[in-house]
Amino acid sequence: MTVDAPARTSPHRHLVDIDTWSRTEIEDLLSLAVEMRASRAARAHRSLLEAETVGLAFYEPSTRTRVSFELAAKALGATVVDLAVERSSAGKGESLVDTLRTLERTGVTTVVLRHSASGAPHLAVRETGLRVINAGDGMHAHPTQALLDALTLREAIGPLDGKLVAIVGDVAHSRVARSNLHALATLGVRLRVGGPSAWVAGFERWAGLEVATTLAAALDGADAVMALRVQTERAAADGIGSLDDHVRDWRLDETRMQRAAPDAPILHPGPTNEGIEITAALANGPRSLIGRQVENGVPVRMAVLARLAGLA
Amino acid sequence: MTVDAPARTSPHRHLVDIDTWSRTEIEDLLSLAVEMRASRAARAHRSLLEAETVGLAFYEPSTRTRVSFELAAKALGATVVDLAVERSSAGKGESLVDTLRTLERTGVTTVVLRHSASGAPHLAVRETGLRVINAGDGMHAHPTQALLDALTLREAIGPLDGKLVAIVGDVAHSRVARSNLHALATLGVRLRVGGPSAWVAGFERWAGLEVATTLAAALDGADAVMALRVQTERAAADGIGSLDDHVRDWRLDETRMQRAAPDAPILHPGPTNEGIEITAALANGPRSLIGRQVENGVPVRMAVLARLAGLA
Amino acid sequence: MTVDAPARTSPHRHLVDIDTWSRTEIEDLLSLAVEMRASRAARAHRSLLEAETVGLAFYEPSTRTRVSFELAAKALGATVVDLAVERSSAGKGESLVDTLRTLERTGVTTVVLRHSASGAPHLAVRETGLRVINAGDGMHAHPTQALLDALTLREAIGPLDGKLVAIVGDVAHSRVARSNLHALATLGVRLRVGGPSAWVAGFERWAGLEVATTLAAALDGADAVMALRVQTERAAADGIGSLDDHVRDWRLDETRMQRAAPDAPILHPGPTNEGIEITAALANGPRSLIGRQVENGVPVRMAVLARLAGLA
Repeated sequence: MTVDAPARTSPHRHLVDIDTWSRTEIEDLLSLAVEMRASRAARAHRSLLEAETVGLAFYEPSTRTRVSFELAAKALGATVVDLAVERSSAGKGESLVDTLRTLERTGVTTVVLRHSASGAPHLAVRETGLRVINAGDGMHAHPTQALLDALTLREAIGPLDGKLVAIVGDVAHSRVARSNLHALATLGVRLRVGGPSAWVAGFERWAGLEVATTLAAALDGADAVMALRVQTERAAADGIGSLDDHVRDWRLDETRMQRAAPDAPILHPGPTNEGIEITAALANGPRSLIGRQVENGVPVRMAVLARLAGLA
Repeated sequence: MTVDAPARTSPHRHLVDIDTWSRTEIEDLLSLAVEMRASRAARAHRSLLEAETVGLAFYEPSTRTRVSFELAAKALGATVVDLAVERSSAGKGESLVDTLRTLERTGVTTVVLRHSASGAPHLAVRETGLRVINAGDGMHAHPTQALLDALTLREAIGPLDGKLVAIVGDVAHSRVARSNLHALATLGVRLRVGGPSAWVAGFERWAGLEVATTLAAALDGADAVMALRVQTERAAADGIGSLDDHVRDWRLDETRMQRAAPDAPILHPGPTNEGIEITAALANGPRSLIGRQVENGVPVRMAVLARLAGLA
Repeated sequence: MTVDAPARTSPHRHLVDIDTWSRTEIEDLLSLAVEMRASRAARAHRSLLEAETVGLAFYEPSTRTRVSFELAAKALGATVVDLAVERSSAGKGESLVDTLRTLERTGVTTVVLRHSASGAPHLAVRETGLRVINAGDGMHAHPTQALLDALTLREAIGPLDGKLVAIVGDVAHSRVARSNLHALATLGVRLRVGGPSAWVAGFERWAGLEVATTLAAALDGADAVMALRVQTERAAADGIGSLDDHVRDWRLDETRMQRAAPDAPILHPGPTNEGIEITAALANGPRSLIGRQVENGVPVRMAVLARLAGLA
């Protein structure tokens, strides 16, 4: 395989971690997502996945991820079935593996799994024959978020190789940050994380990663900035200090963004806590890519579903 | 536009309030609903809305309204996605506007919104680019209920112009009553409301509306009677007196209905509290249009979906 | 109708109890299920039920039954709508009959009903015009489970006539046991139940049924064994003794299964309590048909949906 003639098929049956994907595989997936965006608008490919049955197994609440996977699967003609955990036997103590095996035996071919336990998708891969797509597991990974972020960034600031991206906030507990660090590094991005010391501790050991402990240092010269959601109940537990302190020291606003490169865009995985980690003006202003991130969620997930099924 | 040659298109992108619709627009919509009923039976129009994605966003429980919108959208080939509020990020504090913008960005084109806050659909119109259909907002409006009631009435008692319709019960807090008063007045119906004084207070200021404070006066000569659901927990709060008093003074039964015009039908938006605002015998008897109201829900909502999309 | 040339149509509009089905009718349904399995794989029959609207009304949690009915209906092209009880007016006190009548009036043609009240499906048959499929009612019946068990057994051990099947555990409270006893007896199977005396009390009055009060006696020479789920909270209430006692006396494992016929398979309706009524090794070992039972759920339910609709 060469970079000039990327293969249209993937060696991957699953998408659990983005760190097992090569640069070519990721770039090829993003290109496929662009095609899928056009296909969806043209209602092409409406039977591409007609032989597939996609099971949605969300053990944590979600709007954007669940809805975008559902619409992605339907846009390609897959049959979709929602486990609706709280109404299922999973709600009365059936184990995750038993539930997933049941889905497999009813004919589900691909499971989209969100779970509070890091590693749940690995378990699914090991214990079932399902194709597994990780829609967020504990503090571990959220690979489709990283893919849609990469696509959104590339469309906003051009080729990513050599660009500097700063990820700001509670990096330590964020599956979004972790998957982005892997995906963006693979794509040649220079990376920096910034946050209160408890929230960036240990990241100095990541090869090639800068760690900033003030917001000014985090933003300095960044070509793009990614804010993370503050889980307010966690701040206290981690000894981060008061939420007021955090807002004072780390909340992103338009003035502070001037430390970044001119017109550097801002991303956020949503839902935002406006006024906490980001001001409403910045989240809704011209630098914001937050809406584009959501928009790119469906075509990226169409591409993932089709690629893993070997159908694109 | 003339009454003789009604336009087949609507200037309306949204259905938030029925009071902004003209008589011609309402009558034309009802005619379209009749066509849609036949289309559904014949499974025509199964791809009319294939380019549309309808999002169901029900922040309050519902059987008949949610199911009938879902079946209406599917009968016309739309993609349907259910926000399932309690399993979504909306359940963990995401604002309504943020949730709706997320739906829009995933490709939802029309949102069907039920919310306990009066004005929620107005907010959706102002803050998003979605087509918005109000499926009931607080005590404000429930326009598709008024449309299906008008269709049901017209098919039961003939042309509505000049007919007398009495709406009985907790008018003050009823979005169903409010939308019916607007729609029926627009259609030339003479209107009367009746109920305990706290529940009809203020309505004497509505132009052309009679207010009755006894059931006999409310029913007298009415060509049709619409009962409203008593929310039993509200009765106490409003100083209506005991539920026993209410039953004694206001419960509709077959004997009391003799004050109305011969064979005058009874409507109720459901679910009924049998024995409270209406007897089981009346609700299930020959005067009752309650079943027809539910039946008309699907074709009316097919017509609304198609008309707002400019496709019928 | 003769046994030699079984009719392809059924006199049954409903499936409430399997005990009203004749041997020919059951065998014919199982044959149809085998056909449906092939049809599904070939994506044939994808519009067989396109005129049908199937309503899922699950008042108790379920994974395997709900998902398999949903996939069965979709595989045949039916429109599916999920009542989602907890989000419906049923959740705020609407009666079962009112809810089902509402579904009927919105155009639902077949309801798949699970309810904690024994007899709920009978009520649905009597009070509505819906085709009714019982997906489990209280302690009464679960006929599609019995059908899929019969199919699974037949494919594992050959023709069922004259075979000996032992059903072990809390037979008294099990709708699965009750429906299996009826279906298997109709198919000519010799039947034995075994369990603590409180859990098999009264079954000595069933014609032709053996009752065993030790596990060794229950298993002795059985051609197949069906284990039931122990509801641990019930064991105490029934004076069964401690769960430890139950495990000691009644838990099925590979050694104990040697009392049964060589290679006699083990069935379980799921979800299993591994370690309580069955060991993990047995549930996941070569004798286990548990996975096949789930797999057969979809084609059996396709057959039921199509047969009741008179379309196969």
